[in-house]
Amino acid sequence: MFEAAEVGNKLDKATFKREAPGVRAALLAVQRRIAGSELAPVILISGAEGAGKGETVGLLHAWMDARGLETHVLWDETDEERERPEYWRYWRTLPPRGKIGIFFGSWYTRPIVDRVFGRIDDATFERTMRRVRDFERMLTLEGYPILKYWLHLSKKAERKRIKELRADPRMKWRLSRDAKKFFKHYDDFRRVSEGCVRLTSTGFAPWTVVEATNDAYRNLTVTTSVLHALEEALDEVAERARAKTRKARLPKAKKANILRRLDLTQSLSGKAYDTRLATAQAGVGRLARKLRKAERSLILVLEGPDAGGKGGAIRRVTAAMNPYLYRVIGIAAPTDEEAAHPYLWRFWRHLPRRGRVTIYDRSWYGRVLVERIEGFARPDEWRRAFTEINDFEQQLAEAGTLTLKFWLAISAKEQLRRFKDRQGTPYKQYKITADDWRNRAKWNAYEAAACDMIERTSTDVAPWVLVEADDKKWARVKVLETIHEHLRAAL
Amino acid sequence: MFEAAEVGNKLDKATFKREAPGVRAALLAVQRRIAGSELAPVILISGAEGAGKGETVGLLHAWMDARGLETHVLWDETDEERERPEYWRYWRTLPPRGKIGIFFGSWYTRPIVDRVFGRIDDATFERTMRRVRDFERMLTLEGYPILKYWLHLSKKAERKRIKELRADPRMKWRLSRDAKKFFKHYDDFRRVSEGCVRLTSTGFAPWTVVEATNDAYRNLTVTTSVLHALEEALDEVAERARAKTRKARLPKAKKANILRRLDLTQSLSGKAYDTRLATAQAGVGRLARKLRKAERSLILVLEGPDAGGKGGAIRRVTAAMNPYLYRVIGIAAPTDEEAAHPYLWRFWRHLPRRGRVTIYDRSWYGRVLVERIEGFARPDEWRRAFTEINDFEQQLAEAGTLTLKFWLAISAKEQLRRFKDRQGTPYKQYKITADDWRNRAKWNAYEAAACDMIERTSTDVAPWVLVEADDKKWARVKVLETIHEHLRAAL
Repeated sequence: MFEAAEVGNKLDKATFKREAPGVRAALLAVQRRIAGSELAPVILISGAEGAGKGETVGLLHAWMDARGLETHVLWDETDEERERPEYWRYWRTLPPRGKIGIFFGSWYTRPIVDRVFGRIDDATFERTMRRVRDFERMLTLEGYPILKYWLHLSKKAERKRIKELRADPRMKWRLSRDAKKFFKHYDDFRRVSEGCVRLTSTGFAPWTVVEATNDAYRNLTVTTSVLHALEEALDEVAERARAKTRKARLPKAKKANILRRLDLTQSLSGKAYDTRLATAQAGVGRLARKLRKAERSLILVLEGPDAGGKGGAIRRVTAAMNPYLYRVIGIAAPTDEEAAHPYLWRFWRHLPRRGRVTIYDRSWYGRVLVERIEGFARPDEWRRAFTEINDFEQQLAEAGTLTLKFWLAISAKEQLRRFKDRQGTPYKQYKITADDWRNRAKWNAYEAAACDMIERTSTDVAPWVLVEADDKKWARVKVLETIHEHLRAAL
Repeated sequence: MFEAAEVGNKLDKATFKREAPGVRAALLAVQRRIAGSELAPVILISGAEGAGKGETVGLLHAWMDARGLETHVLWDETDEERERPEYWRYWRTLPPRGKIGIFFGSWYTRPIVDRVFGRIDDATFERTMRRVRDFERMLTLEGYPILKYWLHLSKKAERKRIKELRADPRMKWRLSRDAKKFFKHYDDFRRVSEGCVRLTSTGFAPWTVVEATNDAYRNLTVTTSVLHALEEALDEVAERARAKTRKARLPKAKKANILRRLDLTQSLSGKAYDTRLATAQAGVGRLARKLRKAERSLILVLEGPDAGGKGGAIRRVTAAMNPYLYRVIGIAAPTDEEAAHPYLWRFWRHLPRRGRVTIYDRSWYGRVLVERIEGFARPDEWRRAFTEINDFEQQLAEAGTLTLKFWLAISAKEQLRRFKDRQGTPYKQYKITADDWRNRAKWNAYEAAACDMIERTSTDVAPWVLVEADDKKWARVKVLETIHEHLRAAL
């Protein structure tokens, strides 16, 4: 695969000097179009030691407007990163729409190095590459064109380059500390890198392998390719904008579905409630401290119809824990920084560090509930969200996070009763808005969407717990006892 | 001072139960008013070991809407925090307008502990407290009412409380690991804490010392006080809104001022430029790497009239450095998350970690330039900005950051020439907007504001460097050589 980049491609300096100004002006122009678009291109510069990754990034910086570029080096992790799932650091560094992100090192770096030094086996490596593919597919669909460059040097060329760099005191620093060690493993790196390029050259995010022996050739090839890829991405966006969006069709609820089968008449007496709640709270409090010591983390998701009792249940959970252990994130309309990133970004940013708890009052499931029903997300967007969400929760599990999702189910009748009660009670009035009545009118569609969601996203690693919530006492005890049980089993 | 909180204040449970629902409903109501306001109250809960800080925070959480609360524990620092000025962690945790921040531990914790254990002396402690006062004054003026509670226990009461907690297996965890060690120093803590409360009880952010022996009394006192303080803050806002804003008066430039005294005819020949630029760039590149090893950081600020050559100068600086070492932050209109925080927040968030460089293309000085001239900031806001900025830059210096500020000065004539050139060159047209022409019409006012700014904010730790920029070559070389010199002197 890399042989095609060992054919001695060269460019004389005169040609480069002649071509460069045109490419540069065009790059600036395309960058301005990006700035006014919904796109946030991501450029990965990878490749061999001494192949000129730094110079290439430097050239892009020199030619484009640095204010529209964000360059990230993904080598050492900080402890805030280490305490969260691996991809957290990639999510936090994604550029907002309108900017271009340049990555020096990327989600490819660690798997390749780990494979070369035998820290992971082939199967794990391939699984990692599949995750990369999923991530890049999602990014592409979210308006993040991915441009991946592999700067290649033949073994001979690399040996020569390292020697040259080392001999020149002004250039020596360009070599990483590990250059020598890495060169010893040239053949392994080559084999693993080829595998990586093969496994992740997809239609939506292909690799461009660039022969890097000759600086002028490398520089012109990369910049020209960036230029064309960005132009293409902009054209595609324009085309998509012309294509009509299909109108959302409201899903219909089946007569017999998992939610209708719930026995909503279940209830608890005041006395049983007090005892069981107190016991569960004591247990959750104790285990939350144990969670901290064990450096695990916990995510609770609460979803359900309006007035289902999410807030009340959350207060019973938080009452059991030391306030510094948890954070409650209420999900409403996204801020403009959130809207300028892929859908899941606003949830990634609040992930708990090890030992902590994040409680989401509504969550990423909004994508397949309200956004689906109200048409805020296109059908292709909410359809792929199921997979994206499952993958997200899988990553949480791999990082030692316990995820529990509660659906607080109430009947349409009970909802109406609570709405009326809220309207009649001064300090509850703020809880009820015109939106609530509008959503209620689409009760069946919401129910059908919820059934879909539960069916597709209740997994071993992040199960949905259906809570009969017409009786608040029953619901709260069930939530607390479920958390207690799961914590006990996990710790 | 604390004697007033050792008088045996008590409340019987019945009274508490009777009063609580009213306070709670009122708190919820006031929280909703906060949510719709420009305020972001900050509540600090401090005090003795075992005085019930955790319970108090827990109660506030239980009574209010957790979605509008953000609780932060400021004990251990992460390495991302350690690599920046001390206050970075406070800035990053400030709530956005409309939310309430509760701080467990705060900017008071470290100075008090350090003073008790003799790590800092009285003079340093007092200096720290002055910084706290400045910080809190700024926060208050920015719409962050500060509510500070000191939960006090007499020595006898604290001994008893620690004993009780330790004897109860369900409560033992409430004691910090250091409880015993801290209690040994009860008298020192008391003395230092009293000093702290005295030094930082200001009109805008007073301390409330609360006798904490009796739970019911403590809980009702704190919650009622929070309630009243928040109501007062909301009333003040309403009052201020009624008061008319004074109209901004455009400052007039003096005939002889520091900018007009510059010799803008200075220029460099192409040859001298090439040589001197290359030398300075090589030096800056080398020292940027040294900076990294030395774990220092560098901030460059570029300001000046439109078309003054900021972008070009920045590109010459970045060309000298490895792209992963620096970050260029272009300052334009704030995002909504930025607008929801105090003015300096958007600059704090981009501070470089140790060993890195942040280049601000326009900066916090916008407050006393464009915001002053265009009336985006009220006179009292831009007037206090001078002090706030000086203090900000002082903090940078204390954290080992080198700050250099460049004013790229051009003549009105040269600006006109460049505007026309930009309009005539296709790939430069994007650089010129209607705003640029509007600003140009206020040339004298901008010049006067710049002179004011330079006079008031050129300090030893963050000097302004005036750059004669009618000749771009001269300007670029001067920028590079100045950076080179300062880096050499500092490293």
